Amino acid sequence: MPTISKKGHDMPASPIRKLVPYAEEAIKNGKSIYHLNIGQPDIKTPEVALNAVKKNDIEILSYSRSEGSDTYRKKLAKYYNGHNINVTYEDIIVTTGASEALLFLFSSTMDPGDEVIISEPFYANYIAFSTASGVKVVPAVCDINDNFALPSVKAFEKLITPKTKAILICNPGNPTGYLYSKEEIEQLAALAVKHDLFLVADEVYREFVYDGHKHHSIMEETNIDEHAVVIDSVSKRYSMCGARVGCLVTKNKLVRETFLKFAQARLSPPTYAQIASEAALDTPQSYFDEVIAEYVGRRDLLIKELNTIKGIKVAKPKGAFYCIVELPIKNADHFAKWLLEEFHINNETVMVAPADGFYSTPGIGANQIRIAYVLDKESLIKAVYILKEALKVYKD
Amino acid sequence: MPTISKKGHDMPASPIRKLVPYAEEAIKNGKSIYHLNIGQPDIKTPEVALNAVKKNDIEILSYSRSEGSDTYRKKLAKYYNGHNINVTYEDIIVTTGASEALLFLFSSTMDPGDEVIISEPFYANYIAFSTASGVKVVPAVCDINDNFALPSVKAFEKLITPKTKAILICNPGNPTGYLYSKEEIEQLAALAVKHDLFLVADEVYREFVYDGHKHHSIMEETNIDEHAVVIDSVSKRYSMCGARVGCLVTKNKLVRETFLKFAQARLSPPTYAQIASEAALDTPQSYFDEVIAEYVGRRDLLIKELNTIKGIKVAKPKGAFYCIVELPIKNADHFAKWLLEEFHINNETVMVAPADGFYSTPGIGANQIRIAYVLDKESLIKAVYILKEALKVYKD
Repeated sequence: MPTISKKGHDMPASPIRKLVPYAEEAIKNGKSIYHLNIGQPDIKTPEVALNAVKKNDIEILSYSRSEGSDTYRKKLAKYYNGHNINVTYEDIIVTTGASEALLFLFSSTMDPGDEVIISEPFYANYIAFSTASGVKVVPAVCDINDNFALPSVKAFEKLITPKTKAILICNPGNPTGYLYSKEEIEQLAALAVKHDLFLVADEVYREFVYDGHKHHSIMEETNIDEHAVVIDSVSKRYSMCGARVGCLVTKNKLVRETFLKFAQARLSPPTYAQIASEAALDTPQSYFDEVIAEYVGRRDLLIKELNTIKGIKVAKPKGAFYCIVELPIKNADHFAKWLLEEFHINNETVMVAPADGFYSTPGIGANQIRIAYVLDKESLIKAVYILKEALKVYKD
Repeated sequence: MPTISKKGHDMPASPIRKLVPYAEEAIKNGKSIYHLNIGQPDIKTPEVALNAVKKNDIEILSYSRSEGSDTYRKKLAKYYNGHNINVTYEDIIVTTGASEALLFLFSSTMDPGDEVIISEPFYANYIAFSTASGVKVVPAVCDINDNFALPSVKAFEKLITPKTKAILICNPGNPTGYLYSKEEIEQLAALAVKHDLFLVADEVYREFVYDGHKHHSIMEETNIDEHAVVIDSVSKRYSMCGARVGCLVTKNKLVRETFLKFAQARLSPPTYAQIASEAALDTPQSYFDEVIAEYVGRRDLLIKELNTIKGIKVAKPKGAFYCIVELPIKNADHFAKWLLEEFHINNETVMVAPADGFYSTPGIGANQIRIAYVLDKESLIKAVYILKEALKVYKD
């Protein structure tokens, strides 16, 4: 039998998706599951986006341009301009989700053996894209006890080696909900310039910022045009995860030209989804106001309920819709499986994402889980109750 | 300024798309272009597919499963069963186009430095996926004078080294229109088993087979379950290039499991496009009968017209909708640009794909172009006329 690749062997299974077979088995056995494990919002997609697809008059479903349709890119540029991000449509390449943008960016800028510094805990698939590209992840470990603030510049600088090509952050952060301060962004920008690194920011949760805080994009920094690369997506912004439309934004022409060669090889991003994404840009502000009010309410409720559980620790998120929770157990991976396989209250149980997949540092995060507060408040209360009762009987 | 990757530097520009800026400039200058350069059919997408999307009742555009929706995979399995391909839905992983299937297959089965033997000339993006994966392409050169038949088994076997991991064919072939005989497929299958290689067949043009010939899938071969991998797509079959839906089909469980890890990292294939693709499976046979009659008519006309041009050579295709044409010039790349920049008849010109991008062997193909006969007959006649007149005045 021919063998698979070393890279394929090393590729981690998705920590969010690897429990899916256990969940399916649980459902087969008659259980209902509260899904706290995946960032699939229950929020309705804006009607303006849904309707644009329903009303499309395509007769031949053709390739679009590899860089995405011009009308969409031009409207996107305006969206960014409205967020203090000074770009033109030529600075944007539309991708099949932020995932593809990250994968092609890794390929465009890093060779096997190169290093990328990522603030940890991080979105688990960053490890996957690194592994797929043969790139080594160097974690900048952030501590739950510091509310996941960045390490000091001095500590950060120690991680930089001649092989470092990029610093990657998610802002606001998945899985922590951490929002980077203007000062932190400025520090990172200065580091990128000083050491000639790319500064890559995954800003897909840009709108999801709470408590009067303000999102500060790396693209608002001056003098880092050659260094700054933003990764974006419509998935969370408009509750359109199934569209699979994202983009790369950078003023670095060589990066765009290189990236475009990878984009040309896959021909084009999906046409229907671009129609939906373009229309979604007309979503009224009232939609976001409602959504954000809802997430803030959920977050407050979730944190309050979680804090009634003995022995847990949780950092209050300032953005996105995730939080990392430290549990009074040893192995969250085992606990998450056990919740699906062994535990239920009135045939209901909870699915959570074990947090070890969000860390590359061995050992850290083994007793943590990520919770996505993408369920309505009533479900959240029930889900946390089930978690609480489960922890009373669970043995490591 | 931070540097791009070596891989990004080595990545070839798409030979099909690299002339697009010249075409845009030509259009700006008032020229009309007959597009013979890209396999974007002018055939209408089946209404059953278009209507399914228009009538969708999605309220939350969610992620689908990473392996594609179960209903689509189950219906796909039936489609394959109807084509003598004995697979279940579990053997299928839905992808974002055949492009993604190829990219993830390369990642799953080959490491940097490994080798893949590809029958040449080949679909240009095979080089891109190889470059992106650090894999060396070893061409099995097929000659226009042999109508692009495979080299002998003996010649083929000489290309196999300890680093060879796979043989890749496109059947029927892009850019040649070559249809592999049952005997050739059997030979390749025997080679794959003998040398423990993957045999990968890109069968996206399965339905486009002419003159009473029959397509023979590698999946019809027995005893190569662990070796055979089919790459497929809805793009050409249903004139749905913009959907971006393809799939990987293999009975090799380890390959599927490894591939799925890459698929999980990009979360899911596009939802709207899966709806269209699932519905497209209900396309009546009459659609294909008409389409195939149309392509046969176009091919016959194209070959006849081309043969009126002095000094050209063309291999009659048995499938797909491409042919390779050898021109009485030295540099087709230059000629193709010149057609866009300098030449026109009544403000009309032709865009062709220079064939050097379909070869990895230096020098071969420099005087060849690929023509995609995706235009109606009247346009084809005009396009070949322009080509003929252009060749009368063109100087290398």
